[in-house]
Amino acid sequence: MTTPLHADPLLDPLFTTAEAADAFSPCARLQGMLDFEAALARAEAAVGVIPASAVPAIAAACDAALYDADALGAEAALAGNTAIPLVKHLTRKVKEADEDAARFVHWGATSQDAMDSGLMLQLRRFLDGLERDAAALANGLAALADRHRDTPMVARTWLQHALPTSFGLKAAVWLDALGRDRERLAAARGRLALQFGGAAGTLAALGSAGPAVTAALAGELALPLPALPWHASRDRVTELAGALGILAGTLGTIGRDVSLMMQMEVGEAFEPSGPGRGGSSTMPHKRNPVSCAVLLSTAVRAPALVGGLLAAQVQEHERGLGGWHAEWQALPDLARLVAGATRHAVGLIDGLTVDAARMRSNLEMTRGLILAEAVTMALGEAMGRLAAHARVAEASRRAIADQRPLRDLLAEDAEIVAALGLDGLDRLFDPLNYIGSAGHFIDRALAHHAAQT
Amino acid sequence: MTTPLHADPLLDPLFTTAEAADAFSPCARLQGMLDFEAALARAEAAVGVIPASAVPAIAAACDAALYDADALGAEAALAGNTAIPLVKHLTRKVKEADEDAARFVHWGATSQDAMDSGLMLQLRRFLDGLERDAAALANGLAALADRHRDTPMVARTWLQHALPTSFGLKAAVWLDALGRDRERLAAARGRLALQFGGAAGTLAALGSAGPAVTAALAGELALPLPALPWHASRDRVTELAGALGILAGTLGTIGRDVSLMMQMEVGEAFEPSGPGRGGSSTMPHKRNPVSCAVLLSTAVRAPALVGGLLAAQVQEHERGLGGWHAEWQALPDLARLVAGATRHAVGLIDGLTVDAARMRSNLEMTRGLILAEAVTMALGEAMGRLAAHARVAEASRRAIADQRPLRDLLAEDAEIVAALGLDGLDRLFDPLNYIGSAGHFIDRALAHHAAQT
Amino acid sequence: MTTPLHADPLLDPLFTTAEAADAFSPCARLQGMLDFEAALARAEAAVGVIPASAVPAIAAACDAALYDADALGAEAALAGNTAIPLVKHLTRKVKEADEDAARFVHWGATSQDAMDSGLMLQLRRFLDGLERDAAALANGLAALADRHRDTPMVARTWLQHALPTSFGLKAAVWLDALGRDRERLAAARGRLALQFGGAAGTLAALGSAGPAVTAALAGELALPLPALPWHASRDRVTELAGALGILAGTLGTIGRDVSLMMQMEVGEAFEPSGPGRGGSSTMPHKRNPVSCAVLLSTAVRAPALVGGLLAAQVQEHERGLGGWHAEWQALPDLARLVAGATRHAVGLIDGLTVDAARMRSNLEMTRGLILAEAVTMALGEAMGRLAAHARVAEASRRAIADQRPLRDLLAEDAEIVAALGLDGLDRLFDPLNYIGSAGHFIDRALAHHAAQT
Amino acid sequence: MTTPLHADPLLDPLFTTAEAADAFSPCARLQGMLDFEAALARAEAAVGVIPASAVPAIAAACDAALYDADALGAEAALAGNTAIPLVKHLTRKVKEADEDAARFVHWGATSQDAMDSGLMLQLRRFLDGLERDAAALANGLAALADRHRDTPMVARTWLQHALPTSFGLKAAVWLDALGRDRERLAAARGRLALQFGGAAGTLAALGSAGPAVTAALAGELALPLPALPWHASRDRVTELAGALGILAGTLGTIGRDVSLMMQMEVGEAFEPSGPGRGGSSTMPHKRNPVSCAVLLSTAVRAPALVGGLLAAQVQEHERGLGGWHAEWQALPDLARLVAGATRHAVGLIDGLTVDAARMRSNLEMTRGLILAEAVTMALGEAMGRLAAHARVAEASRRAIADQRPLRDLLAEDAEIVAALGLDGLDRLFDPLNYIGSAGHFIDRALAHHAAQT
Repeated sequence: MTTPLHADPLLDPLFTTAEAADAFSPCARLQGMLDFEAALARAEAAVGVIPASAVPAIAAACDAALYDADALGAEAALAGNTAIPLVKHLTRKVKEADEDAARFVHWGATSQDAMDSGLMLQLRRFLDGLERDAAALANGLAALADRHRDTPMVARTWLQHALPTSFGLKAAVWLDALGRDRERLAAARGRLALQFGGAAGTLAALGSAGPAVTAALAGELALPLPALPWHASRDRVTELAGALGILAGTLGTIGRDVSLMMQMEVGEAFEPSGPGRGGSSTMPHKRNPVSCAVLLSTAVRAPALVGGLLAAQVQEHERGLGGWHAEWQALPDLARLVAGATRHAVGLIDGLTVDAARMRSNLEMTRGLILAEAVTMALGEAMGRLAAHARVAEASRRAIADQRPLRDLLAEDAEIVAALGLDGLDRLFDPLNYIGSAGHFIDRALAHHAAQT
Repeated sequence: MTTPLHADPLLDPLFTTAEAADAFSPCARLQGMLDFEAALARAEAAVGVIPASAVPAIAAACDAALYDADALGAEAALAGNTAIPLVKHLTRKVKEADEDAARFVHWGATSQDAMDSGLMLQLRRFLDGLERDAAALANGLAALADRHRDTPMVARTWLQHALPTSFGLKAAVWLDALGRDRERLAAARGRLALQFGGAAGTLAALGSAGPAVTAALAGELALPLPALPWHASRDRVTELAGALGILAGTLGTIGRDVSLMMQMEVGEAFEPSGPGRGGSSTMPHKRNPVSCAVLLSTAVRAPALVGGLLAAQVQEHERGLGGWHAEWQALPDLARLVAGATRHAVGLIDGLTVDAARMRSNLEMTRGLILAEAVTMALGEAMGRLAAHARVAEASRRAIADQRPLRDLLAEDAEIVAALGLDGLDRLFDPLNYIGSAGHFIDRALAHHAAQT
Repeated sequence: MTTPLHADPLLDPLFTTAEAADAFSPCARLQGMLDFEAALARAEAAVGVIPASAVPAIAAACDAALYDADALGAEAALAGNTAIPLVKHLTRKVKEADEDAARFVHWGATSQDAMDSGLMLQLRRFLDGLERDAAALANGLAALADRHRDTPMVARTWLQHALPTSFGLKAAVWLDALGRDRERLAAARGRLALQFGGAAGTLAALGSAGPAVTAALAGELALPLPALPWHASRDRVTELAGALGILAGTLGTIGRDVSLMMQMEVGEAFEPSGPGRGGSSTMPHKRNPVSCAVLLSTAVRAPALVGGLLAAQVQEHERGLGGWHAEWQALPDLARLVAGATRHAVGLIDGLTVDAARMRSNLEMTRGLILAEAVTMALGEAMGRLAAHARVAEASRRAIADQRPLRDLLAEDAEIVAALGLDGLDRLFDPLNYIGSAGHFIDRALAHHAAQT
Repeated sequence: MTTPLHADPLLDPLFTTAEAADAFSPCARLQGMLDFEAALARAEAAVGVIPASAVPAIAAACDAALYDADALGAEAALAGNTAIPLVKHLTRKVKEADEDAARFVHWGATSQDAMDSGLMLQLRRFLDGLERDAAALANGLAALADRHRDTPMVARTWLQHALPTSFGLKAAVWLDALGRDRERLAAARGRLALQFGGAAGTLAALGSAGPAVTAALAGELALPLPALPWHASRDRVTELAGALGILAGTLGTIGRDVSLMMQMEVGEAFEPSGPGRGGSSTMPHKRNPVSCAVLLSTAVRAPALVGGLLAAQVQEHERGLGGWHAEWQALPDLARLVAGATRHAVGLIDGLTVDAARMRSNLEMTRGLILAEAVTMALGEAMGRLAAHARVAEASRRAIADQRPLRDLLAEDAEIVAALGLDGLDRLFDPLNYIGSAGHFIDRALAHHAAQT
């Protein structure tokens, strides 16, 4: 079979990557199962459960290109899963080459062994690609954090101006979260283990050879050896889903912040632009933040997909009814979206246009109110925090009402001048003097990043 | 363009219908938008906003088969949505035929007008098919309810035997819920209105002709005329999603119940079987409830998809960032799944094998305990509900401990015999005498169904 | 029993209303069930199933104030629901007053009858309050739409400046969505029917009197009479949940937009302020958009709560295991949150400070680029849409690069001046001349609102 | 303040534990913040940022019992969070004792520092209790796995009989998943770090002392020291939520399986019973699986709560609007539910009644069909898997049609008898001879458990 790269040729190029599309294509799904079947034959031959002579014919038939996806799909619609018809077709194909070998196809295994182990192989490949992009994103963020460690900008809380910060610290906060996301993905990956239990999870069909075949099979596929089959224990799948969902949140936060900074009235940072990118069909001046849209859209969709996978966890007895089915498309959907958003984030961060001058001018928009805390803290040492708070709050109200700089109003208050001096007042109104430990925090985040690389 | 029927040829045949796949194919998505563009040209010509001479060339180019999905997808990945490149390609195509006409393509509209209105057309078509299947399911359930109005079976609560009921009542309860599902779908469909507002939702580009064009366009597309454009008000979409999610629950309940009845130890009802259907690859005796798996899987997935669409509702200002994007695949995914489950339910109900004898023998499994309430109620009239409850509870405990029929133990209690008589006791242990208003309820449900048909 | 108004005294005053808290208090939950029990006694006496003499003692004991919530809760922890211990305590209480009457408590009913019907009563009361607030919000939005029909402001799409619109149209869009929300709530309310089926949904314990008692009971409680008991069909509950979740989206959209307009750099509209409201503990100048935070937080939480309720729909057989339990706290949680957000929205809209001058000055921020479409459309009539688009796009790029007004650049292009005239160009750059059908749309939304009132 | 143990006295005793209720009570929320404030004063005094003399008065006032929850809640409803009024009240209280000390309350911190760090303390305490229960559950499961390693029972897949397994293996599978759940919870706990960044996440108010105070504060609270403040990076919270959601799935699986085994027709295992536990108000013979209901209900609710928390991750800029608010009740709700379910699972497993005889008799229900695979595999060695499959499938069909034992039908087939011998046939029909590696898997799971303990 060959299938188009993208299941949805109109939308997938926007929402996912070619690598992720490829890792979860129908072809890759089949190949994952076929890789399991080939490895199973090799492992069973190595242990002596099936004759070594059966391996070549089986292995040769384990090539997805040999199968017809539509025929398999039509039979799967009756059988209830893809592995059942695939094993039939595979056996038929092997039989054509070697009638004897055909007797040993899928020996001792159950559909879910092939499907779950195949999925593990797909996920491993997918995660290789995702980690590459995540690492590139981390490098991009680290460079941004380093480059802008002394670029002052407004820190905003509740979508309101709070205090000064540096753009480097904002990037370092993103980087720090991404570092934990990568750790979680690695931990989840480490638990993506071989699935092999046969129809009841006992490997009964292998007699006493179950453990030896299992170990050999894990070796063949380079998958971790689990304590036991886990057909109805879906935590390995949901842990990965959760890690992807959390990463989507990190990416969504970047998308939200950049899109807010990119507002006409804010104008502090911009998505890269280019021919055909982000243009509007009717407004020639517009530059739509396309990558931000993808980051945000993924952050909206991912939590629901994770929730759905968590809801699918209750799977009955040795292998469940419906819950397992619910994973088959939802997990690839989630993975594809998160891969797409990660890739967009790499492009967004690497191509980000930063307007440091606008960041600085936005800091001055409150006529000094944004440094009211600086004054309050300094004044608090002289007259107590609450009193200082009240004094500065009153001056701030007048600054707003009269549209005058806070500094000038404070400079008219003899008690304040006595406490701080006019020079001291001026120093307090320089934002670079009030970003506290920003540099220290950036250094720590960069050190963590360096250690992770 | 031509695209394969199924985006996922391995799994979609199991999880959806050809009609639903078709309604949401890339081709259908394009055609929806192109139908909007053609209708827009006709409406604007009718109102006099564009020359009537421009219509033929535009209309002729509004055929999805003329476009290359891969090229559009690649451009959409930069532009941020599909309509932007489509309008470009459409304009180019029109220009080849009629340079003048090309000036009037997409006149006054915005991408989202085409995409949302196109979606409405797709949804309308999808809902036609879904309603056909839902009606067929309702007919099947009505027939089942009618046929089994006197088939006694165990009513189970908390997965425990409760009292007798009839299988007809169980079917009538499903039917009754399905009736409301269809009402909700119809209500949601009624709100799937034209989207037409231009770039800012003001139709500014049409000058004073906005209302007239809007009305003509709604007429052309046979879509309801909304009070105003609703680009950022997604309740029409989420109402439909909710109605689909509720229907998924109704279907899931059917799937759960049938699969429970189909357990070896229960054996009361069975999915239809056939060649290649529900067989196991390793256990020749097994008959997997494939349709139940699909119903249950859909009932697990649908709530999350609905939740994700609800979460996408917060869309900024006149047209949002990310939230709208989050709908594009999630809504079709949901719709396809629910269509597939509905179709499976039709087959499941129409082909259901009912084992009335087994239903009857399961009723006897508690040696009469299941009729303890009947006795309690009858006895309650004589000695009070609590006292009767205590008396029967005590006899029930002994019936369990001694593995004796409850009737026999009660018959040894002179006070009880005095109150009820031995004949009365026997009558109380006939389940057919203790299904109360089951027939009345079935009649009411059938009458509602008849009125709805 | 008496219980505190708020389950969570620290957070509930922020997130819900006193009325909603009251409607779902433990006390209200008990009273709902007790109202059912009292009405059941009256209905059964009216039909002659129990003696009329039993009614007064039962009715008198149906007062939640007589019961100890902690004792009931402790027993419910063993029994698995609240109605089981409540009926025991109720029976005991009735017995103290009238031993005979005690025999007829809860006659023929099951726990879920009391719990679901009680819930319907609670929901009805809750919805009365919610509709009052929703109507107040609609009135507020209508007033805003009317007052600001000619207040021009920037329409923003993808968080970017698009074209001019009026603030009145923005309010009318909110109003229009809210109108549909109210319709959906009313429809959902209309399906909140009596629950009455006895242990198996057959009303077997009532013999042939089931239908008559049911009708009388529905009359007593003024609840719609369903076709049949619906213990395992939870669509009535999830339809309401869905309607609440959609309303949360409408409110969240308002919250998002206002909070975006309230950004320091935008400054177009502001939440009402007052003593203790929205102040920051450390930044005296800050005015946190507290109501927006609640609207947005509710819009984040509600979809998940709806999703959870939809997931709970699969309830086994005649009464399910776990799914029903999952509703007990989730539905009230959802309802309380949406009530709180609606109330916040009323205050937000009624107290909204609008800075029309700032709206106007933000319109001028792009030096005319925001009116590029106006020019493109006008020019398009002369030279075709694509050519006009290209011409204006080029001028727009230069306007950005050179920081010059678009009008001035266009005025230097002889061909454009020839086409439009300098006067025409000036008219095109007046935003009031490019808000198209905004007024028409506002009128339609107001007319719909008037019809709904 | 003192608040009732349970926010919802009617339902919380069923759904949560006293310890979890206590960990998330309003009182505990306040105390968490107050512990932060006291530790902050100590840390700042140690570093020399505030005078050591200020510490006693501040520490003395950091006792939740001194505050009025209703007053704080009312002020929080205006302020937008609880910390703002709490700091005011705390400062007032300190001032009464030591006017000077009051100047140093909350020095350099922001509301979210107190709220998040307080939450970390609450979560740590909560997780101590949860891990105790999870460990007890693991011990119970290990004991069950060990005790029933040779108790044969039916393995069921798709809710159909598949092959034999042992009940010990079923318990070992639960145990194995629970082991990973505990690992994930420990990993999540390890990331519950101090929150301390001041209003903008820069600790600007502390000048150059930020890092030193942060380190001292982390030491005081015994919380991990993060690289930087994480106000808008919510992955620590969502990772824990995810781990709880996955645990809920493990528990739900146990609840589903036990409730299915407890069905009247299956009768293999039973919840513990006792006075007032699981009784029905109208059916004296019923034994409702109350703990299973709680496990299942939690497994339905938890995914949605996790999804909601994931959706809340997109928090704007340095501290977000609405997203953070959305966590305040959702995370405790989730934690409380999972704690309750875990506790129920402990009781369920420790008190589980296992009917090994019934397990054995259910194995015989298919008249040997359940061992068809055993025969197929044995026969497959002689005649090839597909041929053997076909032969046994045909015999199985006749066994069903004629209601005869499969063994007898196979014994009539000379070719089969020749291949296997009659003795061999008999051995193949002993389920104990066809549970494969069950014992090996149990051993591995027990070894993992022992290593974890």
